[in-house]
Amino acid sequence: MFFASDNAGPAHPQVMAALNDVNAGFAMPYGVDPLMDEVRAQIRDLFEAPQAAVYLVATGTAANSLALATLTPPWKTIFCSPVAHIHEDECNAPEFFTGGAKLTLVPGPDKMTAAALAATIAKEETRGVHGPQRGAVSITQVTERGSVYSLAELRAVSDVAKAHGLPVHLDGARFANALVQLGCTPAEMTWKSGVEAVSLGGTKNGCMGVEAVVFFDPEKAWEFELRRKRGAHLFSKHRYLSAQMAAYLRDDLWLTLARTANAACARLSTGLQAAGAEFLHQPDANMIFAAFPRAAHQRLHDGGAVYYIWEGELKGDDPDEMLAARLVCDWSITDQQIDRFLALLAG
Amino acid sequence: MFFASDNAGPAHPQVMAALNDVNAGFAMPYGVDPLMDEVRAQIRDLFEAPQAAVYLVATGTAANSLALATLTPPWKTIFCSPVAHIHEDECNAPEFFTGGAKLTLVPGPDKMTAAALAATIAKEETRGVHGPQRGAVSITQVTERGSVYSLAELRAVSDVAKAHGLPVHLDGARFANALVQLGCTPAEMTWKSGVEAVSLGGTKNGCMGVEAVVFFDPEKAWEFELRRKRGAHLFSKHRYLSAQMAAYLRDDLWLTLARTANAACARLSTGLQAAGAEFLHQPDANMIFAAFPRAAHQRLHDGGAVYYIWEGELKGDDPDEMLAARLVCDWSITDQQIDRFLALLAG
Amino acid sequence: MFFASDNAGPAHPQVMAALNDVNAGFAMPYGVDPLMDEVRAQIRDLFEAPQAAVYLVATGTAANSLALATLTPPWKTIFCSPVAHIHEDECNAPEFFTGGAKLTLVPGPDKMTAAALAATIAKEETRGVHGPQRGAVSITQVTERGSVYSLAELRAVSDVAKAHGLPVHLDGARFANALVQLGCTPAEMTWKSGVEAVSLGGTKNGCMGVEAVVFFDPEKAWEFELRRKRGAHLFSKHRYLSAQMAAYLRDDLWLTLARTANAACARLSTGLQAAGAEFLHQPDANMIFAAFPRAAHQRLHDGGAVYYIWEGELKGDDPDEMLAARLVCDWSITDQQIDRFLALLAG
Amino acid sequence: MFFASDNAGPAHPQVMAALNDVNAGFAMPYGVDPLMDEVRAQIRDLFEAPQAAVYLVATGTAANSLALATLTPPWKTIFCSPVAHIHEDECNAPEFFTGGAKLTLVPGPDKMTAAALAATIAKEETRGVHGPQRGAVSITQVTERGSVYSLAELRAVSDVAKAHGLPVHLDGARFANALVQLGCTPAEMTWKSGVEAVSLGGTKNGCMGVEAVVFFDPEKAWEFELRRKRGAHLFSKHRYLSAQMAAYLRDDLWLTLARTANAACARLSTGLQAAGAEFLHQPDANMIFAAFPRAAHQRLHDGGAVYYIWEGELKGDDPDEMLAARLVCDWSITDQQIDRFLALLAG
Repeated sequence: MFFASDNAGPAHPQVMAALNDVNAGFAMPYGVDPLMDEVRAQIRDLFEAPQAAVYLVATGTAANSLALATLTPPWKTIFCSPVAHIHEDECNAPEFFTGGAKLTLVPGPDKMTAAALAATIAKEETRGVHGPQRGAVSITQVTERGSVYSLAELRAVSDVAKAHGLPVHLDGARFANALVQLGCTPAEMTWKSGVEAVSLGGTKNGCMGVEAVVFFDPEKAWEFELRRKRGAHLFSKHRYLSAQMAAYLRDDLWLTLARTANAACARLSTGLQAAGAEFLHQPDANMIFAAFPRAAHQRLHDGGAVYYIWEGELKGDDPDEMLAARLVCDWSITDQQIDRFLALLAG
Repeated sequence: MFFASDNAGPAHPQVMAALNDVNAGFAMPYGVDPLMDEVRAQIRDLFEAPQAAVYLVATGTAANSLALATLTPPWKTIFCSPVAHIHEDECNAPEFFTGGAKLTLVPGPDKMTAAALAATIAKEETRGVHGPQRGAVSITQVTERGSVYSLAELRAVSDVAKAHGLPVHLDGARFANALVQLGCTPAEMTWKSGVEAVSLGGTKNGCMGVEAVVFFDPEKAWEFELRRKRGAHLFSKHRYLSAQMAAYLRDDLWLTLARTANAACARLSTGLQAAGAEFLHQPDANMIFAAFPRAAHQRLHDGGAVYYIWEGELKGDDPDEMLAARLVCDWSITDQQIDRFLALLAG
Repeated sequence: MFFASDNAGPAHPQVMAALNDVNAGFAMPYGVDPLMDEVRAQIRDLFEAPQAAVYLVATGTAANSLALATLTPPWKTIFCSPVAHIHEDECNAPEFFTGGAKLTLVPGPDKMTAAALAATIAKEETRGVHGPQRGAVSITQVTERGSVYSLAELRAVSDVAKAHGLPVHLDGARFANALVQLGCTPAEMTWKSGVEAVSLGGTKNGCMGVEAVVFFDPEKAWEFELRRKRGAHLFSKHRYLSAQMAAYLRDDLWLTLARTANAACARLSTGLQAAGAEFLHQPDANMIFAAFPRAAHQRLHDGGAVYYIWEGELKGDDPDEMLAARLVCDWSITDQQIDRFLALLAG
Repeated sequence: MFFASDNAGPAHPQVMAALNDVNAGFAMPYGVDPLMDEVRAQIRDLFEAPQAAVYLVATGTAANSLALATLTPPWKTIFCSPVAHIHEDECNAPEFFTGGAKLTLVPGPDKMTAAALAATIAKEETRGVHGPQRGAVSITQVTERGSVYSLAELRAVSDVAKAHGLPVHLDGARFANALVQLGCTPAEMTWKSGVEAVSLGGTKNGCMGVEAVVFFDPEKAWEFELRRKRGAHLFSKHRYLSAQMAAYLRDDLWLTLARTANAACARLSTGLQAAGAEFLHQPDANMIFAAFPRAAHQRLHDGGAVYYIWEGELKGDDPDEMLAARLVCDWSITDQQIDRFLALLAG
């Protein structure tokens, strides 16, 4: 019963099998291994983007920071949600990789709205050389609160960016979870919605540690390669990144795993709702933020469930006080685990 | 017959087995997985350094850059060999991670001598706030030319550093290859020789992609952790780094593999010598720089041998012109491959 | 009738005289000119801080950025007001000089309150290595909206910082204007209120271009000197900075000029109030934010008054629409200019 | 008898007069003062470059670092002499402003030769993403050893740069001293010789503290403005920089002062030669590196001459030991001072 994060689960057997398969003989290092050609072709095909520049790194923070640094010179500011991973959870990595760009927070509890973005951009408009210059807009899809932007919402946000000539970055650490929820194509969720660069996550959805960075316009490809190298994110034995990503994308494994995780989340969500839990956010994908009484938390805790208390503290006198939990389902959660969780919740 | 680099070989089966073993269920992310406790204990034990701070990253450039940045504020200069990997092959990663420190090259064709270091440090001595301040001394062991510092040489260099209060960093991408060559202990080759921080390589010697950074004085441990995180080098699914390193160090696998690689190199070296090749550097570990006639290179090339021409060009009219090759043996090179190489060389 | 900024007025004749006086013969460069000894003694004496480290630079942005970088490693975040100069008007200079630290905005329209600071700091508390670490608190006195923190307010804010072990920086670009308004000593407004480092402005109050940076604890003095040099802010002909600051502080000139500016502002403010203007902020020092009808703005504009329209646009149809002006008085504004402004305002 | 540096002399009376003249009333801040228009026109006219982008900063390090950062992304390396000011005397400012670019030293005792540059560039040629990429070539004219590149030498160096597509920067802290020595036009010594950007010094030749940065291709003008601002080098009361530069360039004052300094140097040089001093470098402009016996140094020292001992130490037993001096003449050195120096030298 591990609901603490989707970055703590195992790699899928097919991913491990691919790693075992590729582990024979020599392969040219630093990203020119033959499997990388396959990955590049897969992603270009999946995204209907035959010119796209495609790269692999091992962490989501690297994918985001390197993509944003390529899009944003240090005198600009990146627009993002106050709860964006790049703002809250990367120890200033975007500021480091950009060389000191700023992050401007677009007010709101979760998803960035077009209206809020427009208002925020407008405020940065008239300071000449004094204020930070307006830079990239970074959208997190799935958000850190478990919400999924609809295509219309994505388009509305990117339209605001486009109106100001700003590039759009998509932090897709949970890209697949959003994609299967929307039932759209990767192209529709990215460049057809105005996205220039995407961090395409694998780690949280069945891989060991691999993320792709895709630029639909290859103009900045070489700059990205240099940034990746000097950021120490170019793997010598790159085939092990390629193998993960190739297996992940092959035969729709990535979509299957995301559907599994989202279905687990839906099952859990239905059970929580039935038990009277209060939802802080609509659980669109594989994350739930929901409040239920301390007594239930204590039963779960005693029963071995692992997750973060999001608001409040487990210790306390009042058994009826509502405490919020963050519950994340990865592809490997089983129905049995969920049902056991719900049984403990029910008491 | 792949002698291009030791970063292009496969992971050892025991390393792969460890990855498969650890791939079950959930594990706490970001370096607090139980296997990391084992790795920490292994390294502290091997290095006879019970207080050492131990961290894992996935690339050698990350290990070096993060270690050097922790030791060197941006107004200082790092002393290294003109052929150091940190200078020649990391696309300014040390400059990036330190925030703009300088690298001062200690003249010499390969190993840094104590005398050259002393003379170089002396030149930086008297410029007050104007010149760069003197910072860490970085030694590469095995060097990029395949040489191994003796313990006396290491000590002589670090004594110069100590006389000026400068910390010593050891780039040990091929640490094991040097260690088995010297037949000394890890402690002797590091802190007993005046080394404060070491990058302990795994990738080039049988792992997929893992390097340890060890600080013998844990004072800067927290700073390193923050630098690793903001450098995007903290793995969420960290257990896969831990598993590699644990397997690598278990039952002396790392030493066995290094001995195998060095022995292969010795066999190749003996054959080259017998064939009249001229050595540019003494091959102390698993790398050879040797010159032999173009005609031999062409036979090798046609026969499928893969390696870098270090000096000269394969194309050319004179079959007797001496061209230098860089030949690197990793643990997986077989005697058959070497003998076939030597047969082609002989013609 | 120039009310656009206090950085556009002339230097005071005594400052110019000091520059002329010092312009003879040779003087040791880079801050070891004899006049700098006088400046150091003046500031230590004025601030009752015999150990203070004292430095001069030529711009306020340099003073702030260098001081903050000395206090804040790049993995931390600086707490400041959303309207702080360091956030809005320095084109990411603090991010640049710190090497990528973040600025966290403490919500509020102007002055940072202790309660808002405490709440903001609390939010950054529990993310381990993931979030930015909590760094310096930067207070602007006089604020960018013309408000002055009382000593009690300063103390309340710095008490919150101290409770979390965070250093406090004071951006005193208009230090003198606040000081004469409070009627306290420099020590009371700084270290006795918990301030570790202060940017002491001269440029906006009668100098050509000079700001002092004062660290009450000299521990970081050498680091500051190195940062100043590599930031290209160490003047070779430093005596011209020293001369300005020495003249500025001699015989209370700085206080006299600030009193003059504040008095001009009070006169203007009284007139505005009498004319029915609406104040956006209480004008505590030498800046006014006040709204009055478009028709009045147009009369002022036609009459040659220079100032920024803060809210709204001069062009428009409705003569009665209220537009806000930012009006800044420097030491050289005359009563005649103010009265002429008020006459035009009255129509 | 001050020969320690040309950055320790006074400002010329005409420069001071210009500062006094401009010190009246209000002037728009941040570089849009009317005098800046005059400066821009003067420089465009002098350099026969009607499109040139022209900016002022207060220190030579700022001029160099900002110009180089505008020309050089952080993954490149700047080619310069081992004795270049940007390498030896700026505490890593170029590394800081570029965000971590490297400086590659072109071997040689003083002036960079085309052959040495070509050989050095060639070495950086073939490492793909691994090595630093080749960036700007920075030439110091007058060199730090007092030599002046001929136009043919400049052209030869820049031809090498051009052959590799690299931009050329000229550190002209002593631009005027070189110009009058060569007797050529500013255009000939810059863009007609292949220079893209020049730091045009004023501080060492009669100003208080002002340097111009000139880009002959204005394409990067806006980027430079942003870099200047975030580097904290944009003066609010910019008119005081404009006034200095305007006076400096007006009526050929800059050339007159440089001729005066060079003539003083020639007089001193002739006297030294007559006294048997040994010259380490040919004194082409206003700096001399010459060796003479310790006894003479001691007489000079006792007589109040101020200069740096370049090689050796004043203290010592052997009165005949040759110690090298660095002797710099600024515009304000008088014949009497030189003659007194020579008299002491003669004993």
